[in-house]
Amino acid sequence: MSAVLPDRRPAPVPLPAARMCTATTTIALGLVGPGKVGRAWLAQWAQAAPRLREQGIDLVLRGLIDRRRMWLGASRGEPDALMRDFESSPVPDLHRFGPHLVDEGRLHAVVVDCSGSDAVADHYARWLGQGMHVVTPGKHAGSGPIKRWRAIRDATRDGGRFRHEASVGAGLPVIQTLRSQIDTGDALLDVEGVLSGTLAWLFNRYDGSVPFSALLREAHDLGYTEPDPRDDLSGLDVARKLVILAREAGHPLSLADVSIESLVPESLRDIPLDAFLARLDEFDVPMAARLFAARAERRVLRYTARFDGDGARVALSRVQADAAAAHGRLTDNVIQLRTRRYADNPLVVQGPGAGPEVTAAGVFGDVLAIAHHLGARL
Amino acid sequence: MSAVLPDRRPAPVPLPAARMCTATTTIALGLVGPGKVGRAWLAQWAQAAPRLREQGIDLVLRGLIDRRRMWLGASRGEPDALMRDFESSPVPDLHRFGPHLVDEGRLHAVVVDCSGSDAVADHYARWLGQGMHVVTPGKHAGSGPIKRWRAIRDATRDGGRFRHEASVGAGLPVIQTLRSQIDTGDALLDVEGVLSGTLAWLFNRYDGSVPFSALLREAHDLGYTEPDPRDDLSGLDVARKLVILAREAGHPLSLADVSIESLVPESLRDIPLDAFLARLDEFDVPMAARLFAARAERRVLRYTARFDGDGARVALSRVQADAAAAHGRLTDNVIQLRTRRYADNPLVVQGPGAGPEVTAAGVFGDVLAIAHHLGARL
Ligand SMILES: NC(=O)c1ccc[n+]([C@@H]2O[C@H](COP(=O)([O-])OP(=O)(O)OC[C@H]3O[C@@H](n4cnc5c(N)ncnc54)[C@H](OP(=O)(O)O)[C@@H]3O)[C@@H](O)[C@H]2O)c1
Ligand SMILES: NC(=O)c1ccc[n+]([C@@H]2O[C@H](COP(=O)([O-])OP(=O)(O)OC[C@H]3O[C@@H](n4cnc5c(N)ncnc54)[C@H](OP(=O)(O)O)[C@@H]3O)[C@@H](O)[C@H]2O)c1
Repeated sequence: MSAVLPDRRPAPVPLPAARMCTATTTIALGLVGPGKVGRAWLAQWAQAAPRLREQGIDLVLRGLIDRRRMWLGASRGEPDALMRDFESSPVPDLHRFGPHLVDEGRLHAVVVDCSGSDAVADHYARWLGQGMHVVTPGKHAGSGPIKRWRAIRDATRDGGRFRHEASVGAGLPVIQTLRSQIDTGDALLDVEGVLSGTLAWLFNRYDGSVPFSALLREAHDLGYTEPDPRDDLSGLDVARKLVILAREAGHPLSLADVSIESLVPESLRDIPLDAFLARLDEFDVPMAARLFAARAERRVLRYTARFDGDGARVALSRVQADAAAAHGRLTDNVIQLRTRRYADNPLVVQGPGAGPEVTAAGVFGDVLAIAHHLGARL
Repeated sequence: MSAVLPDRRPAPVPLPAARMCTATTTIALGLVGPGKVGRAWLAQWAQAAPRLREQGIDLVLRGLIDRRRMWLGASRGEPDALMRDFESSPVPDLHRFGPHLVDEGRLHAVVVDCSGSDAVADHYARWLGQGMHVVTPGKHAGSGPIKRWRAIRDATRDGGRFRHEASVGAGLPVIQTLRSQIDTGDALLDVEGVLSGTLAWLFNRYDGSVPFSALLREAHDLGYTEPDPRDDLSGLDVARKLVILAREAGHPLSLADVSIESLVPESLRDIPLDAFLARLDEFDVPMAARLFAARAERRVLRYTARFDGDGARVALSRVQADAAAAHGRLTDNVIQLRTRRYADNPLVVQGPGAGPEVTAAGVFGDVLAIAHHLGARL
């Protein structure tokens, strides 16, 4: 079950190993933020690059930048050597970064922004306007100020392309599915789901047998939560994802329009992290009450997001036991799209919605989609 | 809940209505087989065409053909008028069809084959070799002779592009999800699911309270089954979809490699349709026995397909009550992909996997993906 298939069964008739291309499309890549996701993506790129080159897509890494360093050059693999060079690189300058990538306009370039920084998103419209493409797993562009979002969309009109599939559900096909529905003339009626892997894990496990605080502490110790778990429990991250989906469906939603239920009690919001972690048991009684209220209706507790004709709402909900949102496993995200064409029976995508590997895969999928646009064949 | 969203909530800040493009990409379309899916697609095309034109994609219908007629011309809408002209058109000739679409090489062209005909699939490699693109919801190319499949893949190396997303799961994002995983360096461990809407409906409802034959008769009367229900019950259609998925993951599987359990008893296979429909009650006792055997293990019956390191298998299975395949509703398809990156927790796509509207949407999505490749922006 765990083996890679080709090793275990003889291939009756071999398919052509790699389709050879007559024309090669060269694309320069610049990575902003080689953190957890960025480094996972570098490894995936290095592994796939030789095969892609045979297929006519030459992906050349020409820049690496974080808040302390900037490396400019040209690499076709070897991420370890690259990271060593990067360690000793001089001070970063995002304004020099872009021009180097495109090599005075001789190259197509994709900026892969894995920084999760709002400040970097301020550069997108300019880069796009200069014909560079931008791919990010970050949520700032898609859920930040609507003015910046509009500037980014406007810049894609004649400039580069912008993709952020991994900002919702990591590698799950969510944004592209919604976009394809809209582009082919469908209309979104509502979107509903579980959009936080951390909160999914907590509520998939919370059955009253252990106090909520114990699960929270376990998740924190395992690194499933942000360093400060209130960043997950506030619901803000989930609300950002909902805003991204609504905007992709054509609705100019802002974070301020989302009704957000924070799971953090008022009294624990503005205290230091240490004090917060020492008082987790204050969650237990109110959470147990909600669990039993849900049980009384034969429902389950899930932290859900919903956008429909009545607006956008992120809250701890009592969900019917046979609803899609109730069927997630472990840290699964569940995204349910109801559209005019999928009105009676919605379309559901489910699977792990976080983790460096699958997030990087979502980022890489976007890079390859742009390569397609540029004429590459896969 | 059923209203289209924009009508029900004021838009705080309008996004640009339609992104205007400086360059327009003109694409000629030729439809083979304006049947149920073909006509649904024509309606979707006619509805979306004006908006797409504003966005710089000019989709011109230049040909329509079935087994009796062929219309050649140029239309930018009005499918009803088109179908009237088509009624009185002269005899078809697939050899003249292609050259007209591309207008002596002046146009990009996509052949949209909704005929479901094996004979039409014989033309794909030639069309692709001539630079035309091919989109189909049909299963013949992807699951037919491996030699023809290889010729089609070979032709896409330097020629047009081939897409058949709607051949599995209709409008659900299945093939593109699998392709993106493979292209970014992931490897398929196994794929499992419910791939027939008809069989899904039967087994989602079959709980022993009514005999299986009664459900079968109801499905037949509602038009949920093929005219001859044995075409669904034989499992062949499901096996074809499994072959398509395996090939997309790089495995040269053939139909002959699939172990198929037909649900039709030996004695009912070779008799006329009338006689078959009169003897449906012969299903009841053996099916009830299987239902109770599943129940005894606290499992449910589902007609599933599975491809893994041990091969390909299509059969009526006892599925755990919490498995993805057990959660389908109505005629839902459920496709579960386990890959190296999604090993612990698979990626699941679920939703209606048949019906002219959603199938046509899958076809249309493929046409727009090709428009993207040709430089169009959405
Ligand atoms: N991790 C996941 O599972 C996951 C899932 C979905 C989406 N995402 C998104 O992916 C993005 C990255 O997540 P991550 O987990 O990889 O974060 P991370 O490990 O903290 O990495 C962030 C990287 O960005 C750099 N950086 C931060 N601010 C910068 C700036 N202003 N300019 C240049 N570089 C900057 C950091 O470098 P310094 O050392 O210089 O700060 C670091 O290399 C975030 O947007 C996150 O929301 C992550
Ligand atoms: N319906 C669904 O829900 C669904 C879902 C997924 C996939 N699909 C696939 O979509 C395809 C079309 O299905 P459908 O339900 O639309 O079938 P349909 O209603 O029977 O339509 C088939 C059309 O193709 C034409 N045709 C048949 N053989 C031809 C040939 N050799 N040359 C030219 N035209 C030919 C037929 O015209 P004549 O009148 O001349 O025969 C008819 O217009 C099939 O491959 C099917 O498997 C359908």
